Amino acid sequence: MTSIALCTINSSARSIARLCQVSRSAHGTADFHSFVARYSTLRKCAFLPGGKWSFIRAGTRQMSQASPGRISLGRYGVFLAAGAAAVTGVLTAGVSHFQRAEMATKISKVEEEEENIRERCKSFMSVPVTDIKVLEQRKDAMSARMEMLIMETQAAFCRALEEVDGGSFRVDRWSRKEGGGGISCVMQDGKVFEKAGVNVSVVFGNLTEEAAKQMRSRGKVLKGKDGKLPFCAMGVSSVIHPKNPHVPTVHFNYRYFEIEEADGTKQWWFGGGTDLTPIYIDLEDAAHFHKTLKEACDKHHPKYYPDFKKWCDNYFYIRHRGETRGIGGIFFDDLDSPDQEEVFNFVKSCAKTVVPCYLPIVNKHLNDSFTPEEKDWQQVRRGRYVEFNLVYDRGVKFGLATPGSRIESILMSLPLTARWEYMHEPTKGTKEAEMLEVLRNPKEWI
Amino acid sequence: MTSIALCTINSSARSIARLCQVSRSAHGTADFHSFVARYSTLRKCAFLPGGKWSFIRAGTRQMSQASPGRISLGRYGVFLAAGAAAVTGVLTAGVSHFQRAEMATKISKVEEEEENIRERCKSFMSVPVTDIKVLEQRKDAMSARMEMLIMETQAAFCRALEEVDGGSFRVDRWSRKEGGGGISCVMQDGKVFEKAGVNVSVVFGNLTEEAAKQMRSRGKVLKGKDGKLPFCAMGVSSVIHPKNPHVPTVHFNYRYFEIEEADGTKQWWFGGGTDLTPIYIDLEDAAHFHKTLKEACDKHHPKYYPDFKKWCDNYFYIRHRGETRGIGGIFFDDLDSPDQEEVFNFVKSCAKTVVPCYLPIVNKHLNDSFTPEEKDWQQVRRGRYVEFNLVYDRGVKFGLATPGSRIESILMSLPLTARWEYMHEPTKGTKEAEMLEVLRNPKEWI
Repeated sequence: MTSIALCTINSSARSIARLCQVSRSAHGTADFHSFVARYSTLRKCAFLPGGKWSFIRAGTRQMSQASPGRISLGRYGVFLAAGAAAVTGVLTAGVSHFQRAEMATKISKVEEEEENIRERCKSFMSVPVTDIKVLEQRKDAMSARMEMLIMETQAAFCRALEEVDGGSFRVDRWSRKEGGGGISCVMQDGKVFEKAGVNVSVVFGNLTEEAAKQMRSRGKVLKGKDGKLPFCAMGVSSVIHPKNPHVPTVHFNYRYFEIEEADGTKQWWFGGGTDLTPIYIDLEDAAHFHKTLKEACDKHHPKYYPDFKKWCDNYFYIRHRGETRGIGGIFFDDLDSPDQEEVFNFVKSCAKTVVPCYLPIVNKHLNDSFTPEEKDWQQVRRGRYVEFNLVYDRGVKFGLATPGSRIESILMSLPLTARWEYMHEPTKGTKEAEMLEVLRNPKEWI
Repeated sequence: MTSIALCTINSSARSIARLCQVSRSAHGTADFHSFVARYSTLRKCAFLPGGKWSFIRAGTRQMSQASPGRISLGRYGVFLAAGAAAVTGVLTAGVSHFQRAEMATKISKVEEEEENIRERCKSFMSVPVTDIKVLEQRKDAMSARMEMLIMETQAAFCRALEEVDGGSFRVDRWSRKEGGGGISCVMQDGKVFEKAGVNVSVVFGNLTEEAAKQMRSRGKVLKGKDGKLPFCAMGVSSVIHPKNPHVPTVHFNYRYFEIEEADGTKQWWFGGGTDLTPIYIDLEDAAHFHKTLKEACDKHHPKYYPDFKKWCDNYFYIRHRGETRGIGGIFFDDLDSPDQEEVFNFVKSCAKTVVPCYLPIVNKHLNDSFTPEEKDWQQVRRGRYVEFNLVYDRGVKFGLATPGSRIESILMSLPLTARWEYMHEPTKGTKEAEMLEVLRNPKEWI
């Protein structure tokens, strides 16, 4: 197995440790792709003039051709290629499994705390919503740490998509009159992606008790001062609709809420998830996607994957159609235990899987040929996507009903094109019928 | 002004009286078209072998060419053409305006009561939901009279659209497990119409008090026996999405509800409306559409048009976009005064305007040329149509949330294709910007 790896001035032992872990799992090509993509997501490659960081291309197309050697990494001219296994071997020689794990944990802490916020911001798609000075001052506060994470996730995902598409994201930085703002990145009518949106928002202000109740899926009643509750909500969310019907749509969202009650108690919780909506079922893709998520979950709790997989199937259910939106993934909300640090670490693990979950699948099907009938089926499935998002999605409903929301950022999850055919029902035995069967009866993928 | 008129064995003095009224208004071509279309909607032309009635083609294309004489009226071979003004003159000579109005009212009653239900049913797109024998037995009950009206409205509108398109409606008769059923007529991917749906439903059963409350826009609390309320709801609804961006989308819906309270009191009310959604504004079309509706309203109450026009603008408002769905028309709900007979007559007048409101506009723009950019703008507006229907429309929301609903009939209002472009904003001074301006600031059209 040959591969690409990166060495940069900033590369830390943490990433090396992660490198070890992944390379040891040795599940073949899909896992390897996942490793490369993950690696390319997480590590900055080189700081470039103009304050931009270059990210390595997910590069699985090269990978699947098993071609080691020099690979052009795009416009910034960052080059480096080597055998991952070799790098791994060198750096971890003589260290036991447990020692490696412990080392990784320690280094993780150090990496996060030590790295310069101002430097990390340079890799982002835009300057963050919160002033960098404020982020520096509050760098230990969860709100600052989460804002850095969502900005990093946005940047990593956008760069990976740009690399595969060849197009560029339009970046809109917006502010919200009532407090906060966001950064919306959209690529429309690209070579690979029909519509790709990656949005960060960081908003704050006061909520009514009723609105606060609606924000929590468990509907817990929160006591405000004179009925008002100061809150802070932030998240990264993305929906990618590719052109080729053999490349699935992906969605992810990771978010954090803080609400202050009248007695000064701070309520906080995390939510999120990543899910896949293929137009045609591909068992290998489904297994790769779910396995990558399961690995991220298993690092934190053995029940996370099975519980959140089920939650995902239940949440993304188009009730009036009797079918799920896609083949699921994970979904969780209101997560506030065992403690803030651990939940944050779990969310971080999830956020860092979005590229390795998705990019290998994009690369695999990028050049698949398709018929007009397959394109039509994609458009019909897109119609269902719209139905779910407008009728059931809590985030969309909350956003549309909230004055001052940036509607374009909320509705960028809708596809560029969609179709509603009256009484559309695939013929038995077709690939379309096979897909529908899966949507009507969610299954286990691993 | 030359024109076409029809004489059939069944044609009654009522239609002649109406003919007089309309021909007297003499507002030029648009009104005249409206008259012809109205006439063609209401009157059966000839009974044909196979139990089908032939309807005259809306025929405005012939009309605009001012060509009197013989005109082929399609596959059933019904021919007749003459000068409407002449016919009117002959039949109403020596009768004053007030006498004519009185005559019309009397004959109207006679026409409705006398006409054989079984015969009237032959013109329908399908046998009615309620057994014909039952309709005959209950022919004086409002539920039976309304069911006949909605079936007639469906047939008249479908035939008019078939004539202009050349295609045929697919007719699905369906039943509802809990009681009742419907007849859905859909024409998809026709020559003129991308998707045309005309649906009748007649449903009954028991409602919970909560559901009953939701059904009334005023949210009146109704007392049920053991929390249950026997109800009966029926209506005709339609959405027509043409292919050509210069032909507007139209929607109408006329409905009737009956709910029986625990003490045996019967609550009843009517609702409905007709509204237009152009892609590009055409002042003449807008005036014709609203004037036709105003004329129907004015026959019943001078406040109906202004009140229901305003209600329509308020109802079809896409709050999160800050724009109306289209240029409105009329909308009313919970109408239960002055008395059942009068409200029914008003609803009947409205139902009978759908063809004269819309068909002249279709015929006018049928062959307009358009650019790909104009088609794109149509698709963007279609996206907004979907947003309104899925997010705000009470009927759709109620339908989707009601177990046992026929989803395909509810969602046939969605266009065949739609588009969502991120941050789409027409350039100032363009026809697209002009349209948007109207949607952002509803105006008076007459």
